[in-house]
Amino acid sequence: MFSAEKGRDHISSQSLADFVGVQSWQIRKDFSYFGDFGTPGVGYNIGRLAREIQKILRLDVIKKAALIGVGDLGSALLAYPGFGTYGLDIVAAFDTDAKKIGRRINGIKIEDCSGIDSLKTQGIFLAIVAVPREAAQPTVDRLVAAGIRGVLNFAPCKVQTPKRVKVITLDIAMELARLPYYMPAG
Amino acid sequence: MFSAEKGRDHISSQSLADFVGVQSWQIRKDFSYFGDFGTPGVGYNIGRLAREIQKILRLDVIKKAALIGVGDLGSALLAYPGFGTYGLDIVAAFDTDAKKIGRRINGIKIEDCSGIDSLKTQGIFLAIVAVPREAAQPTVDRLVAAGIRGVLNFAPCKVQTPKRVKVITLDIAMELARLPYYMPAG
Repeated sequence: MFSAEKGRDHISSQSLADFVGVQSWQIRKDFSYFGDFGTPGVGYNIGRLAREIQKILRLDVIKKAALIGVGDLGSALLAYPGFGTYGLDIVAAFDTDAKKIGRRINGIKIEDCSGIDSLKTQGIFLAIVAVPREAAQPTVDRLVAAGIRGVLNFAPCKVQTPKRVKVITLDIAMELARLPYYMPAG
Repeated sequence: MFSAEKGRDHISSQSLADFVGVQSWQIRKDFSYFGDFGTPGVGYNIGRLAREIQKILRLDVIKKAALIGVGDLGSALLAYPGFGTYGLDIVAAFDTDAKKIGRRINGIKIEDCSGIDSLKTQGIFLAIVAVPREAAQPTVDRLVAAGIRGVLNFAPCKVQTPKRVKVITLDIAMELARLPYYMPAG
């Protein structure tokens, strides 16, 4: 996002604030919780800031993710180039459909779901769930048993996990349904 | 979600609160902003509540959406059955790729982007943008000019619109990147 390649070494809290749409003091305050990496009047060294943010988000150690469910949405996610921006990489994909197992998308071979149980040995602690709603909870239960600690859930339902496992649910249809509320009539 | 088919006529604010994960007074307070549709000791009539929420979200009048960008993600969205849950329907799809134009996905014929300009005459005020990052702002500008009032943007960037146009950006990779922050080490 803010890459040193753009020809600048430093960025001010004001520029960051304008980009995000908040006040500059909020930027400075938020970063100050994690350490002191800006210089008054100069701003933040972009390379260092990027590394610090990666560390804060733990993207320096967590890099691998597994995808469960290779339907339309799952296939699109496997092909999606955007994860690389954050250093994240989908390195394994699972489905229950025998016709899909063994196929490759974007270099990733689709495996039978029994492989989920050995994710931990592969150092994978992050999973993307793109299965039908009714399969979501059993899938997440299996992922939790396999040692997964973070789940991005696309199934349009809440899933239960132990407290140590963080779930973010992205209900795409609900996001679209939220929009009309903000749209003035006329 | 809460359909009368499940064999119940009414639901309590407590049941709703448990489902959402908030306190029951919060449910009652929030609904009370929009009118008085619960009965103490009885709860909310499910059919009426669903209709009231549809009205609040304006899903009783806004039903049609257009999709711009029929790549991997766009194709998955066209095939996604979840929008129907909210009464929303993708009724038009656009792409710049001549090889895609004229093809049908889920009954929707992919059109050339020039068709965007006549969305208003079709009563379409909602758009889903699934184009590459560099195409996002020009696409949104064209949608705004065509009278679109709500945009669900999947391009991983902020887009500028006049205040009358509401944008929700869903940066899928960023959502995945947020997870490791919450994942305890070890």
